[in-house]
Amino acid sequence: MHPLTPLLPDEIAVCAAILRAKFPLKNFHFKAITLREPLKAALLAWLEGTGPTPPREAYVCYYIRGTPHFFESVIDIAGGALLSDEQIKAGYHGPADGPEIEAAEKAALADAGVQAALEKLCLPEGSVVVADPWIYGSDGVTDAKRQFQCFLYLQSPHGERNPDSNHYAFPLTISPVVDVETMTVVRIDHLPTGADATPTPPKPYRVPPPSEYTPEHQSLRTDLKPLHVVQPAGASFTVTEEVPDSGGAVIEWQKWRLRTGFNHREGMVLYNIAYDGRDIAYRISLSDMSIPYADPRPPYHKKAAFDLGDAGAGVMANNLKLGCDCLGSIHYLSSNLSTDVGTVLAMPNVICIHEQDSGIGFKHTNYRTGRPVVTRNRELVLQSIITVSNYEYILAFIFGQSGEFHYEVRATGILSTAPIEPGVEVPWGTVVHPGVLAAHHQHIFSLRVDPQIDGAGNKVVYEEAVALPADDDDAATNPFGVGYVTRTTELTHSQGIDTRSATNRVFHVQSTTKTNPINRLPVGYKLTIPPFQKLLAQPRSLHHARVEFGDHALYVTKYREGELFAAGKWTNQSRGGEGVRSWAARADPLDRGDPVLFVQFGINHIPRIEDFPVMPAEVLRVSFKPANFFSRNPGIDVPPSTQAFNASVLLSGKPTTTTDGERECCD
Amino acid sequence: MHPLTPLLPDEIAVCAAILRAKFPLKNFHFKAITLREPLKAALLAWLEGTGPTPPREAYVCYYIRGTPHFFESVIDIAGGALLSDEQIKAGYHGPADGPEIEAAEKAALADAGVQAALEKLCLPEGSVVVADPWIYGSDGVTDAKRQFQCFLYLQSPHGERNPDSNHYAFPLTISPVVDVETMTVVRIDHLPTGADATPTPPKPYRVPPPSEYTPEHQSLRTDLKPLHVVQPAGASFTVTEEVPDSGGAVIEWQKWRLRTGFNHREGMVLYNIAYDGRDIAYRISLSDMSIPYADPRPPYHKKAAFDLGDAGAGVMANNLKLGCDCLGSIHYLSSNLSTDVGTVLAMPNVICIHEQDSGIGFKHTNYRTGRPVVTRNRELVLQSIITVSNYEYILAFIFGQSGEFHYEVRATGILSTAPIEPGVEVPWGTVVHPGVLAAHHQHIFSLRVDPQIDGAGNKVVYEEAVALPADDDDAATNPFGVGYVTRTTELTHSQGIDTRSATNRVFHVQSTTKTNPINRLPVGYKLTIPPFQKLLAQPRSLHHARVEFGDHALYVTKYREGELFAAGKWTNQSRGGEGVRSWAARADPLDRGDPVLFVQFGINHIPRIEDFPVMPAEVLRVSFKPANFFSRNPGIDVPPSTQAFNASVLLSGKPTTTTDGERECCD
Repeated sequence: MHPLTPLLPDEIAVCAAILRAKFPLKNFHFKAITLREPLKAALLAWLEGTGPTPPREAYVCYYIRGTPHFFESVIDIAGGALLSDEQIKAGYHGPADGPEIEAAEKAALADAGVQAALEKLCLPEGSVVVADPWIYGSDGVTDAKRQFQCFLYLQSPHGERNPDSNHYAFPLTISPVVDVETMTVVRIDHLPTGADATPTPPKPYRVPPPSEYTPEHQSLRTDLKPLHVVQPAGASFTVTEEVPDSGGAVIEWQKWRLRTGFNHREGMVLYNIAYDGRDIAYRISLSDMSIPYADPRPPYHKKAAFDLGDAGAGVMANNLKLGCDCLGSIHYLSSNLSTDVGTVLAMPNVICIHEQDSGIGFKHTNYRTGRPVVTRNRELVLQSIITVSNYEYILAFIFGQSGEFHYEVRATGILSTAPIEPGVEVPWGTVVHPGVLAAHHQHIFSLRVDPQIDGAGNKVVYEEAVALPADDDDAATNPFGVGYVTRTTELTHSQGIDTRSATNRVFHVQSTTKTNPINRLPVGYKLTIPPFQKLLAQPRSLHHARVEFGDHALYVTKYREGELFAAGKWTNQSRGGEGVRSWAARADPLDRGDPVLFVQFGINHIPRIEDFPVMPAEVLRVSFKPANFFSRNPGIDVPPSTQAFNASVLLSGKPTTTTDGERECCD
Repeated sequence: MHPLTPLLPDEIAVCAAILRAKFPLKNFHFKAITLREPLKAALLAWLEGTGPTPPREAYVCYYIRGTPHFFESVIDIAGGALLSDEQIKAGYHGPADGPEIEAAEKAALADAGVQAALEKLCLPEGSVVVADPWIYGSDGVTDAKRQFQCFLYLQSPHGERNPDSNHYAFPLTISPVVDVETMTVVRIDHLPTGADATPTPPKPYRVPPPSEYTPEHQSLRTDLKPLHVVQPAGASFTVTEEVPDSGGAVIEWQKWRLRTGFNHREGMVLYNIAYDGRDIAYRISLSDMSIPYADPRPPYHKKAAFDLGDAGAGVMANNLKLGCDCLGSIHYLSSNLSTDVGTVLAMPNVICIHEQDSGIGFKHTNYRTGRPVVTRNRELVLQSIITVSNYEYILAFIFGQSGEFHYEVRATGILSTAPIEPGVEVPWGTVVHPGVLAAHHQHIFSLRVDPQIDGAGNKVVYEEAVALPADDDDAATNPFGVGYVTRTTELTHSQGIDTRSATNRVFHVQSTTKTNPINRLPVGYKLTIPPFQKLLAQPRSLHHARVEFGDHALYVTKYREGELFAAGKWTNQSRGGEGVRSWAARADPLDRGDPVLFVQFGINHIPRIEDFPVMPAEVLRVSFKPANFFSRNPGIDVPPSTQAFNASVLLSGKPTTTTDGERECCD
């Protein structure tokens, strides 16, 4: 078994058993039982054949059920030994889990005070109320204990009793706060529904019309014809799963080779990405994301989810289904996580792997001969989809044929909504349905990239394009005022830094030792980051303290074991100070050649009414492209696009004729 | 025939005949014979049934062959009447055309001085030299007369005699200047090849190795399997060509309806774009593009192509071929242009129309029931490809199912190269092959959008997201420092303006009269522009004067007839002063509700060695999305993604089981 293979079912069971045997009196509430990845140096030595197989270890974190006592342990799986077990100091909280969320929903709705408040809403006969528990957030006021803030909604109040009704069209004004230890309601907030922060006391609810997203409620279009992606000779990739359904697999495609992993927090992880035998990255994963909301009014001011840290991209990964989530010839990977009681949680089909056509790769026509040469750009997609309560994220690594790869996020799902009085407008949100406010919010993603450009010894530089001066003094170099040049700046120490479109600032990761044989420039990859509005919360706010990655498009740190999560290990009701801003503040010199990049990108989502009842996917891409890494276009050997290969269909048009007679294609 | 149908072959012939009959002594060198579009007011009146059919008129521009005398004419086609014929004042030059470029190549290579200089290069026995004539550009020094600057290259000097050899790998130092009137060489420049501007006198040429892009020179990959796009029930769009092969067609697809046009300068034009019967835009086209180069040294300092104004996106449009340029079920449109002698130039298959799958449209899973609802995002693509000497641009309008549309540019082709001494590095370019420099250059595109959001009466606003202040004074509104709001600013007069990612500045085109029935916001579309580095040439430079659109991401003008081309009507060796910057400087009030948008976007292309010998397509997208135009997601009625519809293939993975037994799909 490869040292990076995610924990297998029997290993998960062994870990729970070892802990239970060691602590027979503890009532375990497991939060995660997962692979403890080998130390990077040890794994690299093993990969290079200079070191032993790293020991296979597990990382476990757990609560004593019904208490704030939170622990983390390390287990030597082969040896059956508990290597460490330490209580996490007070004030740190583990992520939420599914059973806990369901229990909070039930507790909120069963509470007598909540029921009494709901009575005052005079809801339609037979109404069903549902609760969306939110991670409580932090405001420094009443947030020491672990809590959920529950937002309540009506489910299909128009009489149809459909559990898949879009309850976000019917937000109520009552918001119970549930204590997680006791699973009891500790406070009932009344939400503001006017233009200011004044809470609205319970009063009869005016039921708006429904706004459904399920197909049975639509008059569906009938003029969309099927479009099939057919690969008659099979897929071009190979997937080697040393242990089936582990989530760990080696994928080879078009000179690319990489290894997958999967864990409860990050979901899909890629390791040891190489092209044509040359290293490019040691490890890439989504590190965290934050979704701070714009509404300043209590209790909305605490809305700022960390979907990975507060819950987990792995544990929320969808079971992907053939014909629905990917198109074409699909290979699914399954994996395993753990439940709150330490049993195995099978995670079927959490990664789908397929190829897609991405338009023309390159084309040139020699106008003298009229001969075109054109290729298509085939891409390999590794995709997971996560559901985080109301929202969905489609997360994909996409590899191309010219050495480039991308990380793509599609944000979709349903807006988190709040009640608003008819006729009221607020500048921090959009009315998306009668009586329904969708507050503005930022989605800020942090992608962690541990590079390995052509082996060890990497540096991060940025390149800028600046005009040459045009003074009279420079008449010799720029007499006509048209010249411009690039200048390159190396990041000598860990820091946060931004893009700058005025100078076309582009970050490159380059080898410190290897240069291009033709132009002698350092071999490297360049990084393209979409424009990014930084966190809007004030520097004095807890949002700012907590979203440590939100204030720069790029953080570069010096590699340290365990520094994986950009907002810190424990984000639930966190106070900041333990994430990437803090690591960068060490100002470590980067001359040892082991930088780690945290790439920030995102959307400031100002809701449109068109984003309701379900949001058309908003697409973001971070790109990595070789820059003087190869000696020419590495995709030059892609076979040309031909009709014999592509089998397109002529609906209407002119056949192309040549002196050889009629031909249908370019070659 | 619709008033916007491009000129038909017999109409082109009639125009030439009318002019020849009127001026029997003129030796015509036609530059364009094209539709003179009806006045907007007249066409709108006709479309609304309140006005007569606009007269069908042609616009013609022509030289007296071999002279600088340049004219433009308007012809009443039905009446057979020449309505106007005016000489264009001195100093303005028409675009180049194919026969002219070929003549310049021949003249450059046949010149005795050039031959004598080439002798001194001691080229290999039997060498073939090719010339790339460039539009001369402007530097205010010797550019009053119309000229070409020719760059010379060796063709396959390694003995194989292949006319499709990549000659850009073998740039020579001799650069003849050809006078277009006389087609004679008027000067021979010697290119600098060191680190400064010193011309390199002819000396023996060291032949570098070849760098070919044609497939017969590659060891092609053998592991790419076919990927077919199959539409067993046909395409979902309809194309209605009132006159076949005119280039004018009505396209209907998924509630979209629009009309195509095609002309020599802009290529594909879209008119009267509507969704579900509601107007969105009156006319959209690429207005121009500029490609200024970074090399400050004469004669490179003049390199700044205006590919539409200097040549024409229509006349350079590729004859698209089945199986090569588009994938799937393709409908091609053909059109007609004119030759230099006034005959018809058939332009077969210049627009391809097809559908593509663009991943997931929206998805939501109710975590309580586990039920996913997912759609795919089908797109309609209208694509043209143009070849401008060394470069290719793939230009596409892409329509989606949720009311959004995009303009996409893919830049590919071959870098324009120059000789450089071995070992020399310059900060304004990249060595991409031994002895071969590719200078940095900007690609700046200007897309002209004449909007018609829900009919007449439009305005342009921008929306910004800004933090609420967090002073003690504002304790009531933003006590925790987390709030932010949007503010909207209307452009009250014509101007150039920029994006600003720090405030998430987003431009919207909105109705001045119609509001959303649910949230009472103005109905509109928002515009997403990729980050854009403005023209780097100094304000005092002729590049700056000429690239009138290069200094702002957006220009908004008040509609005036004929203001179509952002750098002015005549860009060849232009001096500026007649394009969008000048129009905007009128500071026209926009309160009459007829703004026109010129949207700038582009790439600062710092060549990578991976861009040679042919460049992997660089993709740019400008997006238009409805923002409070509809009352909900207009794609909510797209049928859900199902295996029955999509017919995907399971390579490996877990079947999904439900209580109903095994099922493969989400529905």
